[in-house]
Amino acid sequence: MEKNPKRILALLLRVLALGAAVSATIVMATSHERANFFTASFEAEYSDTPAFKYFVIVNAVVSAYSLIALFVPWGSLLRRLLVTLDLLVTMLLTSSISAALAIAQVGKKGNSHAGWLPICGQVPKYCDHVTGALAAGFAAVIIYTILLMFSVHSVLNDLLN
Amino acid sequence: MEKNPKRILALLLRVLALGAAVSATIVMATSHERANFFTASFEAEYSDTPAFKYFVIVNAVVSAYSLIALFVPWGSLLRRLLVTLDLLVTMLLTSSISAALAIAQVGKKGNSHAGWLPICGQVPKYCDHVTGALAAGFAAVIIYTILLMFSVHSVLNDLLN
Repeated sequence: MEKNPKRILALLLRVLALGAAVSATIVMATSHERANFFTASFEAEYSDTPAFKYFVIVNAVVSAYSLIALFVPWGSLLRRLLVTLDLLVTMLLTSSISAALAIAQVGKKGNSHAGWLPICGQVPKYCDHVTGALAAGFAAVIIYTILLMFSVHSVLNDLLN
Repeated sequence: MEKNPKRILALLLRVLALGAAVSATIVMATSHERANFFTASFEAEYSDTPAFKYFVIVNAVVSAYSLIALFVPWGSLLRRLLVTLDLLVTMLLTSSISAALAIAQVGKKGNSHAGWLPICGQVPKYCDHVTGALAAGFAAVIIYTILLMFSVHSVLNDLLN
């Protein structure tokens, strides 16, 4: 099997992306905290918020995809499909992190115009967990973007040189 | 100047994307409604919500980019850069629509766990405006994704055939 620096770099990026997506999934899925708010007790969980559920689902799917993509042989027809699938995966990751970030921002700062109060004061550990998951998700987006730029660039280079 | 069906299709898609991005910008930027809530009067505006501001900025930038991209000549070196820029633009659009959609969903349905009440009952016209802007933004994302798939596919086809 032929090896060259580009392939090793691409493989390394895929392993890193797998790690980031798995971390994002696990950290978000395990985020919960029980808080006592005056007399009421409530539990903050990722599944309370559609955007966070979406984040977990997307990152779980991307984790599975990243694992499978490691084993696609170079030079096969599947490689050709991989660029398109990488593009879709990058868009899904971008979408999930943006939605989760928008909600997390409201959770942190609230929105006085809409009368939505920040909740991070009541459930600080939950907020830290979510922040960690968002950081991992952000890493996954960055890695996939580099991978995609790399694919597009090397395909264009091969074509034009 | 050589013309072929692929180029005309790509040009058509770019014109459609321009239209969608311009519509999304204008419809979101002009969304405001004054509501009387008990004794208080408040005005709902896109600029109240960071995610909606981000949506307007991204769609304005994409509108300008789409306009400029129409005039990049085929076969120039700039075309090569255009695939990469299209990728970034598609990611920006995906990100802005996802963030705006996540907030719009809270505006529509609220989030009982966080104690955030829906606001669309008070400002229905504002909500309709935002929904329209989101639809236009969604159209822009779809068109750019098709354009990108098309570029990647035709580049790969040229390379492999």
